[in-house]
Amino acid sequence: MTHDSQVTVGQYLFSRLKDIGVRHVFGVPGDFQLQLLDFIYTVPEMVWVGCCNELNAAYAADGYARVRRIPGAVVTTYGVGESSALNGVSGAYAENVPLIHIVGMPIRPVQEKRLMVHHALPSPGRNAPDYKSYVPLSQNVSCCQEVLWEESEAAQQIDNAILQAYKQNLPTYIYVPLDLAMQPISSAPLSSPLDFEFRNDTAQEDAALKEILDLIYKAKTPAILADIITDRAHSRVLANELVDITQFPAYNSALGHGILDESGPNFVGVYQGYNASIDGVHQSLESSDLVLELGPLRSDTNLGGFSRGLDDSKVISFRPEFIDVCGKKFDGLHMLPLLKKLVKSLDKTKLSATRKASDIKVGTFLPSTKADSSKLNHQTLVQSFIDAKFFQPNDIVVAEVGTIQFSILDAPFAKDTSFISQIFYSSIGMALPAALGALIAAREVSELGLPMAEGAVTPGRVVLLEGDGSAQMTIQEFGTMARFGLKPVVMLLNNDGYSIERAIHGPEQGYNDICPSWKWRNLFSVFGCKDSDIETILVDDPTDLQKYLSRDSLKVPQKVEFSEVILPMLDYPWRLNKIVTRMRGYNMNLIKEYLASRQAKA
Amino acid sequence: MTHDSQVTVGQYLFSRLKDIGVRHVFGVPGDFQLQLLDFIYTVPEMVWVGCCNELNAAYAADGYARVRRIPGAVVTTYGVGESSALNGVSGAYAENVPLIHIVGMPIRPVQEKRLMVHHALPSPGRNAPDYKSYVPLSQNVSCCQEVLWEESEAAQQIDNAILQAYKQNLPTYIYVPLDLAMQPISSAPLSSPLDFEFRNDTAQEDAALKEILDLIYKAKTPAILADIITDRAHSRVLANELVDITQFPAYNSALGHGILDESGPNFVGVYQGYNASIDGVHQSLESSDLVLELGPLRSDTNLGGFSRGLDDSKVISFRPEFIDVCGKKFDGLHMLPLLKKLVKSLDKTKLSATRKASDIKVGTFLPSTKADSSKLNHQTLVQSFIDAKFFQPNDIVVAEVGTIQFSILDAPFAKDTSFISQIFYSSIGMALPAALGALIAAREVSELGLPMAEGAVTPGRVVLLEGDGSAQMTIQEFGTMARFGLKPVVMLLNNDGYSIERAIHGPEQGYNDICPSWKWRNLFSVFGCKDSDIETILVDDPTDLQKYLSRDSLKVPQKVEFSEVILPMLDYPWRLNKIVTRMRGYNMNLIKEYLASRQAKA
Ligand SMILES: Cc1ncc(C[n+]2csc(CCOP(=O)(O)OP(=O)(O)O)c2C)c(N)n1
Ligand SMILES: Cc1ncc(C[n+]2csc(CCOP(=O)(O)OP(=O)(O)O)c2C)c(N)n1
Repeated sequence: MTHDSQVTVGQYLFSRLKDIGVRHVFGVPGDFQLQLLDFIYTVPEMVWVGCCNELNAAYAADGYARVRRIPGAVVTTYGVGESSALNGVSGAYAENVPLIHIVGMPIRPVQEKRLMVHHALPSPGRNAPDYKSYVPLSQNVSCCQEVLWEESEAAQQIDNAILQAYKQNLPTYIYVPLDLAMQPISSAPLSSPLDFEFRNDTAQEDAALKEILDLIYKAKTPAILADIITDRAHSRVLANELVDITQFPAYNSALGHGILDESGPNFVGVYQGYNASIDGVHQSLESSDLVLELGPLRSDTNLGGFSRGLDDSKVISFRPEFIDVCGKKFDGLHMLPLLKKLVKSLDKTKLSATRKASDIKVGTFLPSTKADSSKLNHQTLVQSFIDAKFFQPNDIVVAEVGTIQFSILDAPFAKDTSFISQIFYSSIGMALPAALGALIAAREVSELGLPMAEGAVTPGRVVLLEGDGSAQMTIQEFGTMARFGLKPVVMLLNNDGYSIERAIHGPEQGYNDICPSWKWRNLFSVFGCKDSDIETILVDDPTDLQKYLSRDSLKVPQKVEFSEVILPMLDYPWRLNKIVTRMRGYNMNLIKEYLASRQAKA
Repeated sequence: MTHDSQVTVGQYLFSRLKDIGVRHVFGVPGDFQLQLLDFIYTVPEMVWVGCCNELNAAYAADGYARVRRIPGAVVTTYGVGESSALNGVSGAYAENVPLIHIVGMPIRPVQEKRLMVHHALPSPGRNAPDYKSYVPLSQNVSCCQEVLWEESEAAQQIDNAILQAYKQNLPTYIYVPLDLAMQPISSAPLSSPLDFEFRNDTAQEDAALKEILDLIYKAKTPAILADIITDRAHSRVLANELVDITQFPAYNSALGHGILDESGPNFVGVYQGYNASIDGVHQSLESSDLVLELGPLRSDTNLGGFSRGLDDSKVISFRPEFIDVCGKKFDGLHMLPLLKKLVKSLDKTKLSATRKASDIKVGTFLPSTKADSSKLNHQTLVQSFIDAKFFQPNDIVVAEVGTIQFSILDAPFAKDTSFISQIFYSSIGMALPAALGALIAAREVSELGLPMAEGAVTPGRVVLLEGDGSAQMTIQEFGTMARFGLKPVVMLLNNDGYSIERAIHGPEQGYNDICPSWKWRNLFSVFGCKDSDIETILVDDPTDLQKYLSRDSLKVPQKVEFSEVILPMLDYPWRLNKIVTRMRGYNMNLIKEYLASRQAKA
């Protein structure tokens, strides 16, 4: 018997994270993981990013993962920390972002003896705590929960959690009893890298491919629609190749804004259902005789209020779980290897498509509620982005939940833009810490020259478009940006409260007001940013905004570039207006039907 | 059949909350409860307190409940909101605080049809969402979950959730589908008030009482020890009466700091186990021939690191769930009615106790780590509180999780002080929003002349003792204090990071650092407080501190009184030192035993 070399469980964990490309770990320390955190410092290049609170740390890890296209890592402490982070993890789960949530637990004997240690929840009847009682919290928001316990199984459990996060693009949990973190285990598994390859059953794949190629070759007016799961499934580069090869008209969904090159010749527009798309966009897509629908996430808002107008008998839907070829389902096929094969085997000369993007007439976006081109409002804001040519290749645009999520869809992005915005899960406050994660991700890639994950685009400047109400949720994370010397472009959209909610209900109700008169432009400084490291400006006029957005200093920011942008309280983007109107009727009908059917039963 | 008058489900809910004394509801709006919130404005005197985020709202409702001794109410929106609030609710559950968490849900037909509406979690395999999937989150942190669904059952479900919260002193949940909130139901139940009376089985109660009286009459060196559940179980006034009548030496636990009058002649000291009590305190208590232990919560820190030195054969333990008379358990007896009867039936002339508090010699508290009476540190901080006679009757002292929780135990409180500090659940960041809730509670009581709940003490000034690391968690709620014109005394204890963690492990490790150089004294102003409404000061010297604490302006604050108090990074209160040392050995032994027993099995 030979003695192999040993590492502690903690070292093993952080070494594995490094193997998959992670260089920064987010979190908040606690006395059930301090000794675990020590091991971060033993793995070269690994850096701890202490956040102000756990929810923000989870959001930051999510933003990091969205940029790197590898799992983000967040460490929290037992009970108080893990449950604080829960909503951040949920968002990642809902929007298919890989996260590894590492939770420090009390030492194993404390758990077995069920001692009343702090952070524990008494069992019903105020009885001794069951230390596993927090574990079920994670079951709905992760695809794998590994409670480490036996030294002999720890390595394999860690590997599994990392692998599942990566392959399923979902959060996973690793629970680490504090004493176990310090126990030695064999380092042998570390010498074999984890196997992330997505593989399909060849026969099934070839069968699907054949049908798909036939359909593609036959189609006269085909189109390609990319949605967010394309990006998550490491397929965005392939998707763009598909557009380049086929020259089919290309569309992005709302969540998929930026995935297919919006500056390229084949791009038509952002498809947000027939209800909330620019004229010409939805008609042309919906009348296509074949739609290659890549990585769809069919939620209410992403579809402009459930207004998906595609005929599934003409849609090939590519997903990580299955491929649906015009109604024929190929279960278990993953879109990534299939797309690879498709791109490789496509024979351009066999295409018979007759329609080009340039043949499609597309209108202009509609005015917002308070449209007046001499005033700053959502409409002139978007126009300023366009006129100033503000967006540039490789931008990471982080848009908060709120009105901006709707207007930003009208501003075409430059090539290889990453768009981070929770249009489905829609938890406000997410964007600000997500921008922190994105900034960290972009910096580590450039400073360490890290290789990019499959299908990832090189991260550039981070632009945070943040609502005032949402900002109040997670504002302290500006402090962490300042602490780490990060340089975002921040546009704080000050419209006096929760405007998107005003659009939905109670425009003048007190519950849609927020703490007034925050001195937004002083925040970074109060949170520790040196005056020489920040440039702030107040903008309440479209001309000034356009001038500001054209500034050279914004192109490669050397300072925090912070603008407070004043928008009217009751100004709503046109897409939001459309969706609210539609959903109001939709819901009213549902309720009417519901009550009627209950009456009928009674 | 007569038509009774109708109210909406929403009106019913908020009317019932008003019935039990609630006047402020905390929360964050969301589109699954906006129409529900409308009904708050229809109930006279009911006020919505919009918080910056949901975790903070839950903490605020918790602080409110601790002061009012009635359930606090918090409203959040589906998924994103409720899970953000979870850790706040957990803390209330762990520390026996009644909360009513009202969660707005999507309309019933959306739930039944399992539509992909925002905030929903896809089911495993990315399938249609199960809208009840968040409900299990609340099961470990509440004693009752009512998912409203049928109009005919809504009133009774609401009543039950409110009643359970009140009677069990625990959080309960009310889930309200948005369409149901607007449905009319009969208002008839509103005319009968909810019945909160705690009643015991008379025969059982009398049997216990007889034994207890016998023991009390016989005891020569008896003592009374009050712990936090005394306060929660509406028994603190009775507990003080018991001390007054018997003149037995009186002790408070750490969590119970302030419950028994610490300025009265019978008070001996704070009992934090034999490990972390002042000399004389634990010896005298532990050598008592009878201890009336009121409302114990036997957790690690509350007992100075599991160092409870009481002999249970000499302890009568009074709890809400049972009474334990020196080892004989009376199940199902509640301490409140029993104590009432006890106080009424006690015949002073039959007492045979010979020991008075004045006979007991008690030492002085020990120095903190960086003790030097010319420097500001935990020791001189406490001494300044004492010398300046800073604490006054009816104070609400809110002490954050961290070093201050240990040193504050050495500062005797004035009569009828409410002490809010999560010594058991220990979630940092709780204190700051809890202080918001306490401020709101104190103001509504005085402005509306509300009657106090049984066993409650009149709330006065709010003093927030806040650590810098903890403050970063929930800092934005200073904004809500400013918005509502509240006037706390805030002492921001700036010791450069997570000092309590430094005491536990890694004093110089980077993970115990926090965002540095926050401009603490500017925060209120940046968050919207007018300069004329705040007084700030920097204190780094004990003489200055004592002078400051003696200021008249602090007695009935007309402004936010904000002090930034500089403490050494590595200064630990003596109790913390004792506990850390003990727990280190304790845990090491547990681990050794654990590993040995596993080896034996293998
Ligand atoms: C965690 C969470 N709480 C509450 C909500 C409900 N909500 C959705 S949008 C919104 C307001 C956003 O306001 P702001 O950031 O100011 O953006 P605006 O719409 O005004 O541009 C709220 C409260 C939510 N989505 N997430
Ligand atoms: C929500 C949560 N996250 C993390 C912890 C772990 N923790 C306990 S105390 C503490 C530090 C508190 O620091 P500070 O408020 O500065 O107080 P100090 O001990 O320095 O006086 C931390 C991080 C916790 N208890 N709760």
